Amino acid sequence: MTSERREDRLYEQVAAKVRGLIMDRIYRPGDRLPSVRELSRQCGVSITTVLDAYRLLEDQGLIHPRPQSGYYVHAYANLRLAEPTISSPSKSPSHFTRDEMLQAMTHQIDRKGLVELAFANPDPDLLPLAKLARLIGAVAREHPEASYGYGPPSGHRAIREQIAQRAFAAGAVISPNEVVITMGCQEAMCLALRAVCRPGAVVAVESPCHYGVLQAIQLAGLRSLEIRTRSREGISLDSLESAAFEQKRIGSPIEACLVSPNFQNPLGSCMSDADKKELIAIAGRNDIVLIEDDVYGDLGFEGGRPKVLRAFEGGENVVLCSSFSKTIAPGYRVGWVVAGKWHTQIERLKHSFTISAPSLPQLVIADFLTDGGYDQYLRRARKTYAANVGRMSEAVAKYFPPETLATRPLGGYVLWIQLPDCLDSVALYAMALERNVFLCPGLLFSTGDGYRRFIRLSASRWSAEVETGLATIGECIHSLRV
Amino acid sequence: MTSERREDRLYEQVAAKVRGLIMDRIYRPGDRLPSVRELSRQCGVSITTVLDAYRLLEDQGLIHPRPQSGYYVHAYANLRLAEPTISSPSKSPSHFTRDEMLQAMTHQIDRKGLVELAFANPDPDLLPLAKLARLIGAVAREHPEASYGYGPPSGHRAIREQIAQRAFAAGAVISPNEVVITMGCQEAMCLALRAVCRPGAVVAVESPCHYGVLQAIQLAGLRSLEIRTRSREGISLDSLESAAFEQKRIGSPIEACLVSPNFQNPLGSCMSDADKKELIAIAGRNDIVLIEDDVYGDLGFEGGRPKVLRAFEGGENVVLCSSFSKTIAPGYRVGWVVAGKWHTQIERLKHSFTISAPSLPQLVIADFLTDGGYDQYLRRARKTYAANVGRMSEAVAKYFPPETLATRPLGGYVLWIQLPDCLDSVALYAMALERNVFLCPGLLFSTGDGYRRFIRLSASRWSAEVETGLATIGECIHSLRV
Repeated sequence: MTSERREDRLYEQVAAKVRGLIMDRIYRPGDRLPSVRELSRQCGVSITTVLDAYRLLEDQGLIHPRPQSGYYVHAYANLRLAEPTISSPSKSPSHFTRDEMLQAMTHQIDRKGLVELAFANPDPDLLPLAKLARLIGAVAREHPEASYGYGPPSGHRAIREQIAQRAFAAGAVISPNEVVITMGCQEAMCLALRAVCRPGAVVAVESPCHYGVLQAIQLAGLRSLEIRTRSREGISLDSLESAAFEQKRIGSPIEACLVSPNFQNPLGSCMSDADKKELIAIAGRNDIVLIEDDVYGDLGFEGGRPKVLRAFEGGENVVLCSSFSKTIAPGYRVGWVVAGKWHTQIERLKHSFTISAPSLPQLVIADFLTDGGYDQYLRRARKTYAANVGRMSEAVAKYFPPETLATRPLGGYVLWIQLPDCLDSVALYAMALERNVFLCPGLLFSTGDGYRRFIRLSASRWSAEVETGLATIGECIHSLRV
Repeated sequence: MTSERREDRLYEQVAAKVRGLIMDRIYRPGDRLPSVRELSRQCGVSITTVLDAYRLLEDQGLIHPRPQSGYYVHAYANLRLAEPTISSPSKSPSHFTRDEMLQAMTHQIDRKGLVELAFANPDPDLLPLAKLARLIGAVAREHPEASYGYGPPSGHRAIREQIAQRAFAAGAVISPNEVVITMGCQEAMCLALRAVCRPGAVVAVESPCHYGVLQAIQLAGLRSLEIRTRSREGISLDSLESAAFEQKRIGSPIEACLVSPNFQNPLGSCMSDADKKELIAIAGRNDIVLIEDDVYGDLGFEGGRPKVLRAFEGGENVVLCSSFSKTIAPGYRVGWVVAGKWHTQIERLKHSFTISAPSLPQLVIADFLTDGGYDQYLRRARKTYAANVGRMSEAVAKYFPPETLATRPLGGYVLWIQLPDCLDSVALYAMALERNVFLCPGLLFSTGDGYRRFIRLSASRWSAEVETGLATIGECIHSLRV
């Protein structure tokens, strides 16, 4: 046995030891592992050996490095379930028809004792609520006049400046004058679609696709065309281009494509920079206006802040829609749209829709962003959501049948789950709700019936109650299979 | 000379004395005059003589009685200008095309040193801003979870209960479950039009008509048909019925009528109960859905709270839209819609538009309404607005040419003014703006050109600065006439 081979064994032994710590949940998904120096001291091995061990675990998908920070347990380190791969939606533009189901669901929000896994709310325990309450009181006292009036049509300058500054982290250079504050991302998308499309036009979307997008398209009198989408890499560019070709051929061209390149809801997919560039090129070639929904963009689990489409060459006229609903509080209803050459048109439409956005929430969020606490909060939020998504993935693997497929989101806080045996998720929804567990049936994420066997779960919070809720869903699945 | 004739002279003398006090502005528009008993003591005449004197002044339009309260100086006691009578709009449905002008105006909002007479904001000095600031801080501290989340789709229960309770004062029995909270009255109207009309339909409106109404109709893909309207009594029912007949005849029936029976903007007109009943009957006969904009309903100058259409027989399916933007604060953006049989549809549309309304402003207003301070505030507001509208009317009579016509609003806080010599109000707007006085050109209140010689002035505040602003407009008018 040569010295080299002994070293081989050594780094494998170190790797096995760390793997054991992860499997025993001493280190949980999202946790930082001991530093290389520390582990080298503890195990009495060289720095090189520890680095080799960590590289092995990285190759096995158990851990991942973060620059200047160390190694972290991967969110899906313990996962045993397979992932869904690529969707196969209908090739015809269609209308969203699930308003009734969605409405019935929203009526459950206030129900007492509900384990809420249906709607994608941020974790309130994570929010600096006391700090926000202090800020709210201070803003109301110090700027009574600013918080009472209609305010400028595009929103208050203070928050538009903060949004422009933060866009830089996503690779985009945006002037505060280009930002129009809206009632969350939902109104931003409604305005964008109205500004960009002619009545009855076809809008390409990812499939599955958040129901809010499908509702906005419907409201604008347009039709949704769902495009095949990979559960990690996002929209299939080939499928988009052939759909564009086909729709042009039949005289009903795709006029807009509403996509969520960063941590799509419900998939959690993230497009690569190369794919984003290619998407812009395809849109350019086919006269398609890109509308980007970036609400989860700040909530990636690993690596830096992914770029928005606007950051790339040719992205000047991508209409960027986003909000603070997923990062701070949906109840503030502060979103925005940056619309390139449609800016003037969108500002006018905004006035017709709702005149202006409420002043106080804008001013409070502007203060929160200005004082610097937001970045720290966001770092904690990312880590927590990565860990909670990991924990929920594990619980799904534990309580659901092994034939279940589950996404491995790269950011955000929802899981997209394919039930075994073509189980009807609407039946599952009803049965779980009777047992006070609230989930989202997959039908809401398409204009068609293609996702009847899917559910979406919100993983923003983790608690014993959530775990019990997942166990209950598992029991419901088992009893529906019988 | 009989004793009777001496008494005649006596009450005329008393009346002349009181008239003098009003003309010398010892008692100003909106002020309460001395009680009958007090005046009888002061003047050494009988109660009957004082009553006769007050009746004479009432007949002359100088004062008016309020039940259980006494006699008040009429808002227009000193007014020398004539009123506009009835409008004569085009008889063809049409589209609103003044978005660009309106947008340019909204960009002036933040301009320093502007005398703001263009937009109809409540007087902030009247608002209990300190109390509201305390409430905001308390709500944020005590209900962090309620103020952070999406909240129920129809809005928080607490505010819906208050709205239902207050509707009773306007003669309507409404359940909190019928109320959907919106982003101000603007979103309420947008939702109502979408729910009620087929695309391209014709909507009857008063003429002149608030631009927000015309924008909402345009946004919903509908056409506005302006109906002749009297400046005190509101929409002409004869004209509405013949328009309904004519539109049916040409196969493009009026599907909805969006009216503001109580203190219409910009006229300040108020329909009588008899006219309201007749309006409902006409709508019923012609399959027209009534959508009522009641934002100024709480701000009548005299008499009790006028009834909403819903208070009358057959009014169950009138869609009632309103907000707190004119009474409390536009920046809160809290409005509502009560939609009868369209409730379900409107709740769904609301979700597609903007998901839900911001939580915090709802909770704060609910608290403000609950603790009882609101009614007291409203009494003060009504009195102040009556007085300010009176003062502005006088200043207009003083500084504008005598051929000017001005409305005598019965509530709200805007004046609608017809300039002499077909003067172009857009030119006046531009000239006044250069001198830092901001007014609203009449063109914004119609789809046509009919109100080019009109302007609307907001009279919610009164100050030396406002008077100087009106003097400046007067100078501009004189220089444009040369």
